[in-house]
Amino acid sequence: MRSVSQHLLKHNKIFLPKSFSYSFYSIDSVASAKMSTDESELTAQITALGEQIKAAKAAGQPPGEWNEKLQQMLRLKKEYQQLTGNEFGGKKEEHKKKEHVQEEGNEKNKEKRAAKAAAKAAREAEKQANRAAREAREREKRLQQTEAAENFGDKPLTQSQVVTETVWTELNQVTPALHGKTITVRGFVQTIRVVGKGVFCLLRSKMSTLQVVCFENKSCSMAMIKYIGALPAESVVDVTGVVSCPETPIEAATQSLVELQVTSFHAVVKSQAALPFQMEDACQKVVDREADVGEYFEDAPEEVARGGVGRHLRLDYRWLDLRTPANQAIFRIESMVGQLFREYLVSQNFVEIHTPKIIGGASEGGSDVFTLDYFGRPACLAMSPQLHKQMTAACSGFERVFESGPVFRAEDSNTRRHLCEFTGLDLEMAIQEHYDEVLQVLCDLFVYIFDGINERCAVELERVREQYPFQNMKYLNPVLKLTYAEGCQLLRDAGIAQDDYEDLSTEHEKKLGDIVLQKYGTEFYFMDKYPLSVRPFYTMPDAENPKLSNSYDFFMRGQEILSGAQRIHEPNLLEERATAHGIDLKDIESYLQSFRHGALPHGGGGIGLERVVMLFLNLPNIRQTSWFPRTPKRLAP
Amino acid sequence: MRSVSQHLLKHNKIFLPKSFSYSFYSIDSVASAKMSTDESELTAQITALGEQIKAAKAAGQPPGEWNEKLQQMLRLKKEYQQLTGNEFGGKKEEHKKKEHVQEEGNEKNKEKRAAKAAAKAAREAEKQANRAAREAREREKRLQQTEAAENFGDKPLTQSQVVTETVWTELNQVTPALHGKTITVRGFVQTIRVVGKGVFCLLRSKMSTLQVVCFENKSCSMAMIKYIGALPAESVVDVTGVVSCPETPIEAATQSLVELQVTSFHAVVKSQAALPFQMEDACQKVVDREADVGEYFEDAPEEVARGGVGRHLRLDYRWLDLRTPANQAIFRIESMVGQLFREYLVSQNFVEIHTPKIIGGASEGGSDVFTLDYFGRPACLAMSPQLHKQMTAACSGFERVFESGPVFRAEDSNTRRHLCEFTGLDLEMAIQEHYDEVLQVLCDLFVYIFDGINERCAVELERVREQYPFQNMKYLNPVLKLTYAEGCQLLRDAGIAQDDYEDLSTEHEKKLGDIVLQKYGTEFYFMDKYPLSVRPFYTMPDAENPKLSNSYDFFMRGQEILSGAQRIHEPNLLEERATAHGIDLKDIESYLQSFRHGALPHGGGGIGLERVVMLFLNLPNIRQTSWFPRTPKRLAP
Repeated sequence: MRSVSQHLLKHNKIFLPKSFSYSFYSIDSVASAKMSTDESELTAQITALGEQIKAAKAAGQPPGEWNEKLQQMLRLKKEYQQLTGNEFGGKKEEHKKKEHVQEEGNEKNKEKRAAKAAAKAAREAEKQANRAAREAREREKRLQQTEAAENFGDKPLTQSQVVTETVWTELNQVTPALHGKTITVRGFVQTIRVVGKGVFCLLRSKMSTLQVVCFENKSCSMAMIKYIGALPAESVVDVTGVVSCPETPIEAATQSLVELQVTSFHAVVKSQAALPFQMEDACQKVVDREADVGEYFEDAPEEVARGGVGRHLRLDYRWLDLRTPANQAIFRIESMVGQLFREYLVSQNFVEIHTPKIIGGASEGGSDVFTLDYFGRPACLAMSPQLHKQMTAACSGFERVFESGPVFRAEDSNTRRHLCEFTGLDLEMAIQEHYDEVLQVLCDLFVYIFDGINERCAVELERVREQYPFQNMKYLNPVLKLTYAEGCQLLRDAGIAQDDYEDLSTEHEKKLGDIVLQKYGTEFYFMDKYPLSVRPFYTMPDAENPKLSNSYDFFMRGQEILSGAQRIHEPNLLEERATAHGIDLKDIESYLQSFRHGALPHGGGGIGLERVVMLFLNLPNIRQTSWFPRTPKRLAP
Repeated sequence: MRSVSQHLLKHNKIFLPKSFSYSFYSIDSVASAKMSTDESELTAQITALGEQIKAAKAAGQPPGEWNEKLQQMLRLKKEYQQLTGNEFGGKKEEHKKKEHVQEEGNEKNKEKRAAKAAAKAAREAEKQANRAAREAREREKRLQQTEAAENFGDKPLTQSQVVTETVWTELNQVTPALHGKTITVRGFVQTIRVVGKGVFCLLRSKMSTLQVVCFENKSCSMAMIKYIGALPAESVVDVTGVVSCPETPIEAATQSLVELQVTSFHAVVKSQAALPFQMEDACQKVVDREADVGEYFEDAPEEVARGGVGRHLRLDYRWLDLRTPANQAIFRIESMVGQLFREYLVSQNFVEIHTPKIIGGASEGGSDVFTLDYFGRPACLAMSPQLHKQMTAACSGFERVFESGPVFRAEDSNTRRHLCEFTGLDLEMAIQEHYDEVLQVLCDLFVYIFDGINERCAVELERVREQYPFQNMKYLNPVLKLTYAEGCQLLRDAGIAQDDYEDLSTEHEKKLGDIVLQKYGTEFYFMDKYPLSVRPFYTMPDAENPKLSNSYDFFMRGQEILSGAQRIHEPNLLEERATAHGIDLKDIESYLQSFRHGALPHGGGGIGLERVVMLFLNLPNIRQTSWFPRTPKRLAP
């Protein structure tokens, strides 16, 4: 099965294999295969069913009436193929198959055939006249009744009752290479514009949009144009048509060199509520980002949408907001970052852990935790997997572990870079002698991720850029390393007061980012040897200078994206440092205990996934890279 | 950098590259390279430092006193090598290097050399006598003072102050191929046995154990044997020795064909607290699993440890329990399942999502939720990513999404297969016509995972089997499919009362598993077309039989590991079904709302990671496959 799927994937098409029901080993497949083993009997049965379906269709019966027969006929055809090794008749049109069968079973003489043909032609002519009249009535009726029509109308509810042989082409595959070909596509109708005797639609699927055109012609009636023109925006439709290449590119569409000349148009699902904003507006390019950052991107109640859709409204209807090609791209890049993170670490013998999010005490002795009741006992949500990742890597001897999971912070911070729930990419590893071993893994990891995005997400990056223009992030390999003292000196050299033993403010971090970019040409670097006093109690002090520590932060575009350190693995020193931080040893007793049975020297770090993506794409607000942001003021959707 | 790391990985060795500090682009690297460019000056400096270090060592000074000098000397040696292209002197022993330098610088005549040699020999003899006496005192002193000795003793705290050129060999790489080689290994001391004038240790690292032997000889004094014999179990040690192949295999060790003849032995970290259980006991093979399942594996207060360590005790000290080779293997397999899950879905164009775990209402209208306070508003922990995965796949048009993340259930179920927090492997995908499209992905996914474990985790499977014997799980490709009605019929055929429209009890599921195994030779299958009444309100009803639904469950060894369905994407039907289930529409308003702007037909499922691993390995209790189990009675560690 896998090879088939991979084949499909390779050709970027979704279709249902003909022998779909045989891809499971069904216990009735043997039994059913025993029935109707006679070829002629099968032929007769299939032909009869074909006639009945045709009659039912001609009589304008809804698909519900003849679907069962269609399914039965498709099953019999499969049996026929299994029995004879040949496909039954042609591929799609019922009457062709029937003719084919008749020809095969009727090889007597020319006269008989000619007489038969004449009689048939007469019957057909009569039928056609009747049918045309009936169809006109039916189409009008279907328009009102929202039932499936022959080449337009509403499809019945997709309830898995029909399996056809339809092959859908993905929108991003519709290129001039398909010129003249008839294809079927599925997508959301983003815009509909009726122009005289025709209609233009912009169809959207994932990161791609395609113009669909329907002007009155033999396969496209005015009724059909009316039907399309009346569809609510954001309905899901199946469109069959011929690919053509317009003289001038269609700027509004990502597939700008092609359009689809409609031959059939069906709504799969109709949008039923008014849209809170137009998708065109939601997709609008940010022209002057710098000017917009202040008011447009802040999460303030007075947020004003300047030439776009306000962030509050977008987030209230996040399921719509996520439909924009830029958002489709942002989250595909985010998904890729996760894959690259794990891919690299697995290649370096790391093991994936799943640490509990519900814990008995405050995870790092902090106060900004969400508390809950756990079967009558107090508990809280983990602010980081810190304790458990140390426990697995160092105390349990897994040596190298990583986790990708939610991290909870009950901080009442309403900034552009804070979330109350975000995705932590954490790693922890045993070291032999020096935490430079950890730094080496981290540097290699980040370069792997950055290279990976650039190499594998070219289309995604382009889609983001189309709406939110940005310059590629500059980074070096080997990665630039500064000591904290060197960083402070760079700030002082630029006339900014910064003490070697005081914490860096967010503002100073950004300024340092600018200085480093100018001086070393990189927007990615790390600082080593932070003052001991500004780091958590479990940070290993420096061996020479008791005011420093074996800790580091990584920065992208002047903002911190990873904080890490060598940790203390020796329980007495751990107690001493906890006490120095004013922590009650009773509160961290189980943590301390786990280091008393021998723990490997170790270090690690934690990366904020949303921040990495935000900064790589130079987006101004972390809400843009969180699927469903959780901030002090937002808990839905 | 990456190629270096990959090289290391390939050879399964951990070592610190000589030019380690140069793998970052440090801003002072250029400056330091400018110092001391004169070869003879360097030689003099290195020699002088070597002398000083030697003197300090001889005087029994602790490493803290001379480490700085050692580091300086190592830096100068690097400079020497950069300057001359040659290594400075030999590799490890100070006095050899010094002699080497002296010889190079002293090519005058034989007499001079002879006189010098005689004088030197005299000095050496005197020194040696003094040194021997001093060393005896020192060693004894170090034994008490826990300071580093020449070839045994406690290493100073690993605080990243020293980088040596030591190359560590992983235990699993110690095989007869290394016979006669001198290697260094790091591991936990699992057992120590003093036998007359010698000592045997079982060293453990990750999934491997190795016997280490030390009998009195020239490199192994009685003081050293005493030192080793007195080490607390589970201390972390560095052992250097010569690999030998004993005549009879060492059954207690995974590396049974080799042992290590110690030449040096140092404690890196000493275990400081009494062990709650012995690791030998924790590793003990389960002989009669069937008999043990009842009392030994249940999470009952009266749990009795029969020939092993009780589960409560293990879980109270989970960091120790996780050190057993079987547990090291179980969680490496679990990590692999996660990789395989994502690997397959990414290959099928799925996007990874991160849905919020804190939500505003009960996630599926259930009551078994953990509630919390969210900045003054009521909130709860998601019982599944159901709503948001549907929102992203169907309402936002991502089409194919997956998530690997924690799932919370506040169920007071104290069984062998329930956890209050577990890892959900969820997926959701748009369908074109039929939910068989989802079933196909699921079948292929599971076969990919099962094949993947068997192919990539041979050693891990063996380690689990050594402690918890099990038979490989039988599965077919294509996967066996039963309808729910067929499953019920099989039960009735075996004399078990089961109605087609009633839910299956856990007991009946297991019985059905037995019947299916006997009849179809597989322990993995799925049932399709469950009664509508036993499924959640958002399940798509069957198109023909209103009492059935488009839903399915997958089973491993008679236990459910995935539940899934085609979902309702049409808001009116969704309202109708919610009402039929007695759900207040106000409670699910935002969920309903997201389907009103056009949603793709879709289906999916959720897999319990811990259950998959438990059942694949035929382990009797889910606590064995959860890193840090959360059950109604357990919230720590």
